[in-house]
Amino acid sequence: MERKGICAPRGFRAGAVSCGIKRGGALDLCLLHAEVPCAAAGTFTRNAFKAAPVRVTMEHVSREGKLQAVVVNSGVANAWTGEKGLDDASSMAEEAALLLGIPTHRVAVASTGTIGTYLPLEKVREGIRKAFRLLSEDGGEEAARAIMTTDSFPKLGEWEFGPFRVGGMAKGAGMIHPDMATMLAFITTDAVVERPLLEKALREAVDQTFNRITVDGCTSTNDMVLVLASGLSGYSPSRSELEEALFQACRHLSRLIVRDGEGASRLMRVKVEGARDEREAKKVAFAVAGSLLVKTALFGGDPNWGRIVQAVGAAVPDAQEKGTEVSVGGIVLARDGIPAEYDEEKAVEAFSREEVEVTVRLSRGEGASEVLTCDLGYEYIRINAEYRT
Amino acid sequence: MERKGICAPRGFRAGAVSCGIKRGGALDLCLLHAEVPCAAAGTFTRNAFKAAPVRVTMEHVSREGKLQAVVVNSGVANAWTGEKGLDDASSMAEEAALLLGIPTHRVAVASTGTIGTYLPLEKVREGIRKAFRLLSEDGGEEAARAIMTTDSFPKLGEWEFGPFRVGGMAKGAGMIHPDMATMLAFITTDAVVERPLLEKALREAVDQTFNRITVDGCTSTNDMVLVLASGLSGYSPSRSELEEALFQACRHLSRLIVRDGEGASRLMRVKVEGARDEREAKKVAFAVAGSLLVKTALFGGDPNWGRIVQAVGAAVPDAQEKGTEVSVGGIVLARDGIPAEYDEEKAVEAFSREEVEVTVRLSRGEGASEVLTCDLGYEYIRINAEYRT
Repeated sequence: MERKGICAPRGFRAGAVSCGIKRGGALDLCLLHAEVPCAAAGTFTRNAFKAAPVRVTMEHVSREGKLQAVVVNSGVANAWTGEKGLDDASSMAEEAALLLGIPTHRVAVASTGTIGTYLPLEKVREGIRKAFRLLSEDGGEEAARAIMTTDSFPKLGEWEFGPFRVGGMAKGAGMIHPDMATMLAFITTDAVVERPLLEKALREAVDQTFNRITVDGCTSTNDMVLVLASGLSGYSPSRSELEEALFQACRHLSRLIVRDGEGASRLMRVKVEGARDEREAKKVAFAVAGSLLVKTALFGGDPNWGRIVQAVGAAVPDAQEKGTEVSVGGIVLARDGIPAEYDEEKAVEAFSREEVEVTVRLSRGEGASEVLTCDLGYEYIRINAEYRT
Repeated sequence: MERKGICAPRGFRAGAVSCGIKRGGALDLCLLHAEVPCAAAGTFTRNAFKAAPVRVTMEHVSREGKLQAVVVNSGVANAWTGEKGLDDASSMAEEAALLLGIPTHRVAVASTGTIGTYLPLEKVREGIRKAFRLLSEDGGEEAARAIMTTDSFPKLGEWEFGPFRVGGMAKGAGMIHPDMATMLAFITTDAVVERPLLEKALREAVDQTFNRITVDGCTSTNDMVLVLASGLSGYSPSRSELEEALFQACRHLSRLIVRDGEGASRLMRVKVEGARDEREAKKVAFAVAGSLLVKTALFGGDPNWGRIVQAVGAAVPDAQEKGTEVSVGGIVLARDGIPAEYDEEKAVEAFSREEVEVTVRLSRGEGASEVLTCDLGYEYIRINAEYRT
C-alpha cells in the first residue's frame, strides 16, 4: 500500500504540524479527518484522574457512537488542569469541527506530555488550522511522528484483509502498563461495521494486546485507544474477520511500544501455564514481567532464575515448589523446588536474545496468560530523570 | 556503650569469619551466642518459596519459644534447594549446637545471597567452628559485616533504655519491600521478657518500620527478623517500654536499609492523609513510593508532581480531584485538580534534599500512613544487572 498508517484505509486524510508546544520545531499536533461520519469506539484509562481530553472524548464518542475527526497534540498532557483544561480540550474539538464543518461531538481529542501544564491554546488553535490545510492521504507517517513524546521512533502500520483495510498509529514508551490503553493508539478501517460489534471487537483486541504489555507499571492519566470505521470499502466483515483484523493491528502497535520501552534493548515474553485460572496466570505473568530485579537481570543478559522464582512466590502465597517449573527458551532452569541441570552457556544465550521467552509452569489448574515486557537499563533512568529538565 | 550492635546487651557474644562462600576473603559467616537460653520471636517472609533456613528457623523458634544461638551466612541464600537445602540448613544449626552444647532447636539459621545454589556445607561447618573460637563481646560490628551482600555499609545499632539494653544488626539494600521482613535483622536485648509479649511487640515494631519501606517492590525468599531476650539485666520492662525500645531499634535499622537502597542517593518519605482508612492510605503511599517514574524523578531532583498524581489516581480508581492535594516539603504543588501556584525554585530545592517529604492529602476519611523509599538511579541498574556475573 502506498498510504501509510491511519491514512491507509479508504476515506482518511491526516495533517501534522509543529505548532510550538514542543521546543525546537518538532511535530507536535496532528489532525485526522474522515470523508464520512465513522462508527467509532474507544477504550480509556482507568486512572481516577482522567485528563481533560480523555473526558471530552469519552463524552463525544458516547453521544452517537460516531466520530469524523481526531485532534492529537504532544508536549502537554492537559491533565490535572481542572475546568480550564476541560474548556481547552473542548476548544480543540470546536476549532476542528468549525474548519471541517461537522458537529463538535464528532471530533475526538487526545493529548500526551507533561501533566499539570495548561495547553497553549492559541498555538494549538493555529496548529489545527495549519494541519487542516495540510490534510492529505499521505499524512499517515507524519501524524505518527506528531504524537511522539519520549518515543524513539514513530509507530504505525497498515494491513489489507481482502476487501477491507486497517491502519493504525500509536505512541508510548514509558508509563506503559494496563489497565488499559496506557498509551495513545488510533486505528482506522474502511470496513462496514456497526458500532456495537466495533466496540466489542476493540475491547477484546485491546485486552489481549495493549493490556498485556508492561514497561514500568505506571498507568497514565491520558491513555486511549480509538477506532474509526469509514465503511468506504463497502465490505462488511464477519465478527471473526473484524476481531482478527483489530487484533493484528493492536498486536503490532503494542509490540512496537514495548520494543520502544524507554531505553529497552531486549524484549521478554512471559508465559504462565497451569495456574488456577486465567486471573492468577495474569497476576504471575505481570509479577515476573514487572519485577525490577528480573528486568535488570534481562538487561544484563543474566539468566538469574532465582529472581523469577522469587517473583512467583511473592505473587502466589500458597504456591507449591513441587510442580513449579521455570524455563527460558525451552531450557528448564528450575523445577520442583530445586535447580535443574542445564548448560549455563545455553541458558545465557537464551536469555540474551532480542526476544527472550520465559515460561513459568504451575501445576494448579488450566489458567494461562502471556505478558510482554522489556528490560530495564541505564537509558530508562536517564530519560526519566531528565524528562522535564 | 563499648560493645556494638547485637553484643551490646548483657550476655551476647559474636564471632565472624570468612569461610570461602564469597570470593576474595570477605566475611561471610557469623555466629551469635547467648550465655543463657533467650525468649525469642521472629517474623518471616510471606513468599511462598521460603528458603530452607527460614523454614528451619520457623520450626526451631516455634518449638519452645527459646533460642540461644544464631548462625548466618551470606553469599548463598540456600533457597529453592529442596530437601538437600533443608538438610544443609539443619546441619548448620547442628554444628553450632554441638560446639555450644545446646539443643539444635535453640539455634536459628539464616542465609542471604544467590537463590538456587547449594551451600558449600563443609566450608560452612568449618566456618562455624572458626567463628565459635572467635566468639567475643567485641564481635558485634564484624558480625554486621559478615551478613552483608550488596550492602555498601554494615548496619547496626545499640541503645540503652535505663536499666536494659537493646542491640541490633541488619542487612538489605535491594529486594526490599513488605511483607514482610524482606531483609535480615537480628535484635538482642537483656530485658526480662515473656515470649508472648516479645512476639507481640516485635510484630508491631516490624509492621511500623520494616514493613513500611520499599526499594524495588520485591519480596525475598529469605527474609526474617529475630529478637532474642537474655533477661540478664534483671529488669522487666513494661509493655510500652518494650514496644518503644523495639520500635526504635527497628526504625533505625530499617532506615539504614533504605538509605543503602541499591545505588540510592536520596530518601523520600511519603505521607498519606485523609484516606478512607489506613489500608487505603498504605496502598496510596506504596503506589507513590513504588512508582518508577516518581523514583527516577526523585533521582533527578525534579518535582514532577504529575507523576505523583498519576500514581494516586491509578491506585484509587474512585479518587476525586476535588480535595486531593500534593505537597513537597510543605509546599503545595497541586490541589483540587489544578496546579497550585508555587515557586519552582523552592520546589526544586525541597525535592533535592537528602530526605524529601511528599504529602498526599485526600479528603475521604481519617486514614493515614507513611512509607519510606529511595530514588532509582544508574547504580541500581549497575548493581542488579551485574550481580551474578
